[in-house]
Amino acid sequence: MNKRLQAFSSWLQQQHSSFAFITSSANVFYLSGFFCDPHERLLALLVFPDGEPALVCPQMEAPRARRSGFRYTVIGYDDSADPWDDIHRHLKARGIKAVSIAVEKNDLSFARFERLSALFPNSQWLDAEDKLRQLRLIKDEQEMKALRQAAELADKAVEIGVSAIRPGVTELELVAVIEYELKKLGVEAMSFPTTVLTGAKTADPHGAPGTAAVAPGDFVLFDLGVIVDGYCSDITRTVICQTASDEQRLMYDTVRRAQQAAIDVCRPGTAMKAVDGAARTVITEAGYGNYFTHRVGHGLGIEIHEYPSLHGANSEPLAPGMVFTIEPGIYIPSIGGVRIEDDVAVTNGGVEVLTSFSKELLMV
Amino acid sequence: MNKRLQAFSSWLQQQHSSFAFITSSANVFYLSGFFCDPHERLLALLVFPDGEPALVCPQMEAPRARRSGFRYTVIGYDDSADPWDDIHRHLKARGIKAVSIAVEKNDLSFARFERLSALFPNSQWLDAEDKLRQLRLIKDEQEMKALRQAAELADKAVEIGVSAIRPGVTELELVAVIEYELKKLGVEAMSFPTTVLTGAKTADPHGAPGTAAVAPGDFVLFDLGVIVDGYCSDITRTVICQTASDEQRLMYDTVRRAQQAAIDVCRPGTAMKAVDGAARTVITEAGYGNYFTHRVGHGLGIEIHEYPSLHGANSEPLAPGMVFTIEPGIYIPSIGGVRIEDDVAVTNGGVEVLTSFSKELLMV
Repeated sequence: MNKRLQAFSSWLQQQHSSFAFITSSANVFYLSGFFCDPHERLLALLVFPDGEPALVCPQMEAPRARRSGFRYTVIGYDDSADPWDDIHRHLKARGIKAVSIAVEKNDLSFARFERLSALFPNSQWLDAEDKLRQLRLIKDEQEMKALRQAAELADKAVEIGVSAIRPGVTELELVAVIEYELKKLGVEAMSFPTTVLTGAKTADPHGAPGTAAVAPGDFVLFDLGVIVDGYCSDITRTVICQTASDEQRLMYDTVRRAQQAAIDVCRPGTAMKAVDGAARTVITEAGYGNYFTHRVGHGLGIEIHEYPSLHGANSEPLAPGMVFTIEPGIYIPSIGGVRIEDDVAVTNGGVEVLTSFSKELLMV
Repeated sequence: MNKRLQAFSSWLQQQHSSFAFITSSANVFYLSGFFCDPHERLLALLVFPDGEPALVCPQMEAPRARRSGFRYTVIGYDDSADPWDDIHRHLKARGIKAVSIAVEKNDLSFARFERLSALFPNSQWLDAEDKLRQLRLIKDEQEMKALRQAAELADKAVEIGVSAIRPGVTELELVAVIEYELKKLGVEAMSFPTTVLTGAKTADPHGAPGTAAVAPGDFVLFDLGVIVDGYCSDITRTVICQTASDEQRLMYDTVRRAQQAAIDVCRPGTAMKAVDGAARTVITEAGYGNYFTHRVGHGLGIEIHEYPSLHGANSEPLAPGMVFTIEPGIYIPSIGGVRIEDDVAVTNGGVEVLTSFSKELLMV
């Protein structure tokens, strides 16, 4: 078994769990190497404290599961069949008498919980989510390779977007240009819906692109990412159309210094709240404290938002192999918003910044 | 209360249910008019057998919820707060003593089931999914308006894609052109990842676009849809690059006749299996029966796949207001695949075909 499955199996052993029933696409991919979005159909990885895992998936996905490198039992089921019959048979054949079943409590549906309960009426339920979050927290070299490539393509995407800015172009047109050019480069999926905002809309950290057109003097904000081999990147850059006002320059300079301050404290042992604090101090001292309305960053990997959360109350220390975003911002409704976001990886000696598009104030 | 909420409340009354805890974005939107994808955060619509509903959502979504036209209590919660405290307080203030709670068993997570169970330890659990499927099955005029617009834009999307075909263009380039032009028209979201396949890849009903390039003599298959005001369209057209072979013409002609035959039997009272059967008979009689490997169609609305499923074992009769796809296909691994898909609405007198892009065999 691979190291990830070994580590998870050992944990099941320590917890005296009979088996784990893992249903989230992200965790199944992490443990098995097979990514599948089964929609309403059942996808489950059965992991045991001793013995090899088994994968349950729609029959039409079974060949792809085997090609993905998963070398153990694959239980493919037809649309006309009830996969729970196959699961029951498999567990019975292995002699499983479940006393404690590990599940992802936020992913397993009530309906599936009822089916599992019916098979094993008196079992206890153990939440596997925290353990899987901990395992996924430290990225290995294979994961780093994908994350670096994804970051490189995110840089490229911003470059394409910035080059297409001109007065009158709309947010959705800029999104369209970026995604068109990326598709031509063979990119198959973005990490999340590409965000381009202009003018006052940049002041909304959750704004969605629409038909607003870029005007001279506008902030133009790009927030986007790309998926490579199952791993996400996430970058934000804010530029100016033509000429910046003094206030805009001050906002930009403040966010840039805040973002660099946060990067500068990243090394093994630094508390996560100190990363948030480093950025927040710069912004607060510049008088913009009330306009930095969110945490400084979030973990990044198979999912665009994953563990850990870098906020002001998180005392957990950084460790080598953690990958997360650093993305302070200042949002002033009447003027607009600036956010600068990089993806970083904690190394033994400090930090590696994965995204590298220029952070100079660009006026285009 | 609107008609939808009234109908659902009446059902709760009949079922002697204390309240419903609705968590799927689609059903919350259907009942409340408010669409929200809350990611890992909690979104819930509380519906009561007597009395007004209440919406629970992240605080930052609360203003949008109110603007959407939802006129009842909106309980917004901060990221630092536990929404379950607010839920408990609200239900307590209304004097709810839950004996039977209606939930969507396939949507409610085990973790949320545990929280609800802790509030109401001895309650029964009633599945609300079937009732909501039944309500959503018959579309009203407001829904038809959105579905017609979505279908019109899907026609436009195919037109754009077909115009961009030339030898050497890749599948992903065609996807990029389509989405670029649609974004310029103000389209904010596709119903599902736009699919363009060429050559032998058209023989895979679940194929994904890649860097395969169109060559003369290839089938080129477009399967895509657009979301308008929360409602999805879904169209498939298959064309030929330059010149079709005799076998390709025969496959195309067969699928076209099969698709028309299925449309022709659609009227109130027709069994759903008869729609599937009408298409399947044409294809089987032409000798391609083994190559039509899926059901003839699926319901369409807020979700791209919703109830009903039009397959050979479904005896349910069609009724006015049902909207679904009709999409027979023939897939021969060595040659390629043809699928033709329209969105149709059952009317009092027969059927309205919502998508209207030409079904002549186009050689471009």
